[in-house]
Amino acid sequence: MRIRVVNPNTTRAMTDTIEQCARAVVGAGTLLDAVTSATGPASIESHYDEAMSIPGLLAAIREGEADGVDGYVIACFGDPGLDAARELATGPVIGIAEAGMRTASHLGRGFSVVTTLERTIGRAVDLTERYGLQRFCLGIHACRVPVLALGADPEARRVVTEACRAAVRADGSDAVVLGCAGMADLCADIRAEIGVPVIDGVAAATLTVQSLVTLGLRKSGRGEFARPPAKPYAGLLASFGSG
Amino acid sequence: MRIRVVNPNTTRAMTDTIEQCARAVVGAGTLLDAVTSATGPASIESHYDEAMSIPGLLAAIREGEADGVDGYVIACFGDPGLDAARELATGPVIGIAEAGMRTASHLGRGFSVVTTLERTIGRAVDLTERYGLQRFCLGIHACRVPVLALGADPEARRVVTEACRAAVRADGSDAVVLGCAGMADLCADIRAEIGVPVIDGVAAATLTVQSLVTLGLRKSGRGEFARPPAKPYAGLLASFGSG
Amino acid sequence: MRIRVVNPNTTRAMTDTIEQCARAVVGAGTLLDAVTSATGPASIESHYDEAMSIPGLLAAIREGEADGVDGYVIACFGDPGLDAARELATGPVIGIAEAGMRTASHLGRGFSVVTTLERTIGRAVDLTERYGLQRFCLGIHACRVPVLALGADPEARRVVTEACRAAVRADGSDAVVLGCAGMADLCADIRAEIGVPVIDGVAAATLTVQSLVTLGLRKSGRGEFARPPAKPYAGLLASFGSG
Amino acid sequence: MRIRVVNPNTTRAMTDTIEQCARAVVGAGTLLDAVTSATGPASIESHYDEAMSIPGLLAAIREGEADGVDGYVIACFGDPGLDAARELATGPVIGIAEAGMRTASHLGRGFSVVTTLERTIGRAVDLTERYGLQRFCLGIHACRVPVLALGADPEARRVVTEACRAAVRADGSDAVVLGCAGMADLCADIRAEIGVPVIDGVAAATLTVQSLVTLGLRKSGRGEFARPPAKPYAGLLASFGSG
Amino acid sequence: MRIRVVNPNTTRAMTDTIEQCARAVVGAGTLLDAVTSATGPASIESHYDEAMSIPGLLAAIREGEADGVDGYVIACFGDPGLDAARELATGPVIGIAEAGMRTASHLGRGFSVVTTLERTIGRAVDLTERYGLQRFCLGIHACRVPVLALGADPEARRVVTEACRAAVRADGSDAVVLGCAGMADLCADIRAEIGVPVIDGVAAATLTVQSLVTLGLRKSGRGEFARPPAKPYAGLLASFGSG
Amino acid sequence: MRIRVVNPNTTRAMTDTIEQCARAVVGAGTLLDAVTSATGPASIESHYDEAMSIPGLLAAIREGEADGVDGYVIACFGDPGLDAARELATGPVIGIAEAGMRTASHLGRGFSVVTTLERTIGRAVDLTERYGLQRFCLGIHACRVPVLALGADPEARRVVTEACRAAVRADGSDAVVLGCAGMADLCADIRAEIGVPVIDGVAAATLTVQSLVTLGLRKSGRGEFARPPAKPYAGLLASFGSG
Repeated sequence: MRIRVVNPNTTRAMTDTIEQCARAVVGAGTLLDAVTSATGPASIESHYDEAMSIPGLLAAIREGEADGVDGYVIACFGDPGLDAARELATGPVIGIAEAGMRTASHLGRGFSVVTTLERTIGRAVDLTERYGLQRFCLGIHACRVPVLALGADPEARRVVTEACRAAVRADGSDAVVLGCAGMADLCADIRAEIGVPVIDGVAAATLTVQSLVTLGLRKSGRGEFARPPAKPYAGLLASFGSG
Repeated sequence: MRIRVVNPNTTRAMTDTIEQCARAVVGAGTLLDAVTSATGPASIESHYDEAMSIPGLLAAIREGEADGVDGYVIACFGDPGLDAARELATGPVIGIAEAGMRTASHLGRGFSVVTTLERTIGRAVDLTERYGLQRFCLGIHACRVPVLALGADPEARRVVTEACRAAVRADGSDAVVLGCAGMADLCADIRAEIGVPVIDGVAAATLTVQSLVTLGLRKSGRGEFARPPAKPYAGLLASFGSG
Repeated sequence: MRIRVVNPNTTRAMTDTIEQCARAVVGAGTLLDAVTSATGPASIESHYDEAMSIPGLLAAIREGEADGVDGYVIACFGDPGLDAARELATGPVIGIAEAGMRTASHLGRGFSVVTTLERTIGRAVDLTERYGLQRFCLGIHACRVPVLALGADPEARRVVTEACRAAVRADGSDAVVLGCAGMADLCADIRAEIGVPVIDGVAAATLTVQSLVTLGLRKSGRGEFARPPAKPYAGLLASFGSG
Repeated sequence: MRIRVVNPNTTRAMTDTIEQCARAVVGAGTLLDAVTSATGPASIESHYDEAMSIPGLLAAIREGEADGVDGYVIACFGDPGLDAARELATGPVIGIAEAGMRTASHLGRGFSVVTTLERTIGRAVDLTERYGLQRFCLGIHACRVPVLALGADPEARRVVTEACRAAVRADGSDAVVLGCAGMADLCADIRAEIGVPVIDGVAAATLTVQSLVTLGLRKSGRGEFARPPAKPYAGLLASFGSG
Repeated sequence: MRIRVVNPNTTRAMTDTIEQCARAVVGAGTLLDAVTSATGPASIESHYDEAMSIPGLLAAIREGEADGVDGYVIACFGDPGLDAARELATGPVIGIAEAGMRTASHLGRGFSVVTTLERTIGRAVDLTERYGLQRFCLGIHACRVPVLALGADPEARRVVTEACRAAVRADGSDAVVLGCAGMADLCADIRAEIGVPVIDGVAAATLTVQSLVTLGLRKSGRGEFARPPAKPYAGLLASFGSG
Repeated sequence: MRIRVVNPNTTRAMTDTIEQCARAVVGAGTLLDAVTSATGPASIESHYDEAMSIPGLLAAIREGEADGVDGYVIACFGDPGLDAARELATGPVIGIAEAGMRTASHLGRGFSVVTTLERTIGRAVDLTERYGLQRFCLGIHACRVPVLALGADPEARRVVTEACRAAVRADGSDAVVLGCAGMADLCADIRAEIGVPVIDGVAAATLTVQSLVTLGLRKSGRGEFARPPAKPYAGLLASFGSG
């Protein structure tokens, strides 16, 4: 079984971290790799960044199809391009927000989300509605650390940890979902420090994909998520026109 | 006052129709133009097409800002890129699905939507939830006419008209919302034939924008919809990196 | 095009203010007037007042129909009598709560409402549900200034302004909706002072009606909002019996 | 204990039937009477009729307060004027739609409503939302018999019965709620004929009021439902101004 | 008419209190008794306790059917076993959470619940959703007094009273629902002390059952709540197998 | 890693089938066994059966804790006793309804459920609400085959298959969830025959538990799902009193 994690931003160092965290959880028979988007923003911190990350993400999915990949993880907490990726892929595609929050919902009455910048909270709210998780999501909090500072800044780990601790107290929640793929490698430490389950969506999504592939489940080839109709594309993105 | 209608597909003939329909409703003091996206799909009929239309749409918004445009209409019934466009624009941005369905909600208990291909129904469902319009939307129906056939095929008009008539009967609705910018010029005729209010979202969104500009309303410059943080972009889309 | 704004309370001075604010926004070709209800409460600050304002409002609508009015605004934030008015009128009827809150929803993630007395908050809550605006309405706050003090009391303006500023801070909202027609003339000043979009429902509803009339949209003549069946009425209200 | 059932239309014969049905269920110590509204429509079959019935209803509540009445039933399936009546009354006020549908919710998974004219269905839908009963209400159906024909027309009983039978079959429901006070005296017969629980809201509301009074429960005197502030009223309704 | 209140815990002293409170409100013609479960927990303070109380509760219902009981109250605020009890019983079965919260909903905009231990709050939340009462329930608060301390501890009354007072202030609610059958005898005193309506679910449910029996309403014998199919049961609970 | 599947009915043959289906999907390092409840109904086809299955289920969980089990599957589509089991267990507990339906939600717009007897549909509806899956569940259908006939009756396989095919057509769904643990071994064949993804909740839940254990996730030890307080139990179930 081949699973591919797509980092939809263009920062290779972040892909490396993500790959490590995903590899740590898959089963013996699973080949896992992670790829970095070839085009788009260095990090995703706005609706604009998210929208502009999708062509690169979709190119990676198409490449994956050519490589015979069995399932994909979208490693950004906005779950960018999920519907379009599902149209392209033969196997399952899972975003880390969906997987992280759903996993947390199994652990108690409700969870908190700790995300990066305040402006990303709105997207997380939208996703709780899309996935039917409003009644489990007790609060969404920003730690105000930019995505790329998560890996670089030694202070960041402390700030994120304290934001998680504060979120649990404020919301009375049973678990914390880390709201950025760039926090994946902080998960175990934060859990140890605050004594509450902490969920990294990258690992959670990887195992969700592995489970779906094990179950032999693929999307139905008909209807809304069938492959998109082929048609001409113009301009800078003309090469995407093979549909 | 300058309003710009952005056609996020790359088919100029469709832009011409849209422009005509939008111009027909604006006030004396409003300058209105319509622009065609410079890159992306010839028509939008899948999540993939929609995602790939957004870079072109956002480039058009950026150009609009340079031109001093006061407000924008996104002329595709999926309201693609709405959140990102709101981050870029100083003035209001309205999608035709939001405007068309909201306008219809003022006319009675509920409306039907008639869209193009069946696979586009799901996106329309998502939008009714996003805008809080589920209780007004009594049904969403596909006429099974592809977007570009709407203008070209003489039979299309009849098929769309019959789909509208059938939708009203099936749903017991008070009005029909046309679920594609390419249906804009069919609106008056269908209304005349079926004797029920029919709403073209292009005209509805244009007047919503005109109203917002008249009221002097712009988004708050703070928070989720502030201009996105500047950052490096790589690859094919590197030029979008000025954020 | 003739638009009529109906003030459903009996205080003529408030009608004058409302008329001025509505006139300031309509297009060149729109004739706008405002009328004062001939019967009922001097101000609307309870469910009782609201219920008792409706006969006068409906008489004004009937008169408007005789005068060939093309569309109506109900200038009270409880949107009293909206369904009944829609039965009587041939053209569109819009309440200022619906228009104000919907307009605000276009400007960001969510808005706050600032209303008059605390006891009016409940009605505003009900209206957010009716119009499907719960997810956009982040808070409803009372400034505790009675309706008729809004125009008379020089201190009132300051109190309302501070309530708006506090609401934005408490709710993290992107805009404020003024929750009383009697606040219409405060709108521009408050906006200037607090630096956040502030929406006056009277102006918003007037432009919504103007847009609907421009689009040629009238309610369907069938079903729930058809003219009510004629029947005998007894007692004080016998004259309303012509249905 | 004194309970008063208010018929908010002006048809005395209907009041007599209602009174009989309500009297049949109250306890030994309960004094029950029914009063006919002194002003407004002969029957309530539109939003207009409903709005115009409220002044007469509220006058009856005020009279009841002078008479020392302990609780009230509003005997129209639109529950007209409920909020305003609660402001005026010291004891509980219950509408027959609320009581009938809530009672039905205790009997199984869900119920059907059978109302009079099709145009009244919308109001019933609104009330299921207001009372949080959407998940129990499986369908609302019109029997197309006008209110005043219910008592007069010998055929009406058969039509209503068949509509109830058809509703149960169509909705797979466990019970039927009769959607008009004028159907109160048909309840036992329909139940016997179709072999499914049938609920008359008049009897159900009467017992709900009796229970509330027995429990010594009155609304809190503070907040939204405190007595409305006194203020001047003008015109035809000037006498209502004592608040 | 025979009504039986089932205390689903095995503490007879609590049954005595409950019986007294229920008897105090029934009509002259109603025979009321209360029974203690023969097996299970001494008090219900967890999902585990609740689940383990149900066999004893259902045995009591079966006994009641043999005794010709006309309706039942389940006297625990988790409404344990309600669906199963409705399958077994011919007459109505009402839980005290449903009855208490619904009764409170008639008294104003919304109510608070004051329950025992914090860990029981989750179940109360679930029940507000099940009964469609979310919009009326403004807050659920724990007084942190264990169930069996309610009767025994002289301090408990004061703690519960203060928790009720605090809940009203925090939630701005119109009424308080007592979240445990063991608080039934505190109801009148708390109401007197805090000056706001306080509802005991035991009394409320008893009168709801009395009303349903008076109305001649029984569940439909078909469908989901028909008597369960007979089948073999094994082990400790083999005697329950008569279905 | 040790995972235990608990069959909460007392039919050993069904446990064998379930065990086989669960074993087929787990990873190399996972020890999986399935146990049959020691007490309660031979099959679960009513709310009564479900309630009576819970003591046996909880006894099995307690035994599992003594055996050092890391996670549990509840193998009945009603997810009986889930909350109580979560209180008892240190590791994760997942019901097959939750896992099956959630897994299906990853495959497209929505799924159908095919359950056994019609009277079980209501419970499935309740569970879609509890898990926030209403918008993904497009229909719930009964095949009218009793649970124990699923394994025994050669005709049953055909009936279930046709019910699945019909459900997809009626609902326009992307996948079918099998609504009974007794259908686990039919899954592959039905999928092959109808050409649409078919989900067996037993396998889905087993992999969900395996994923949670791999991620090192346990419920937080505090709050609602902490171990229940110890207390005396009386009567037949006295031995359950060790809490």
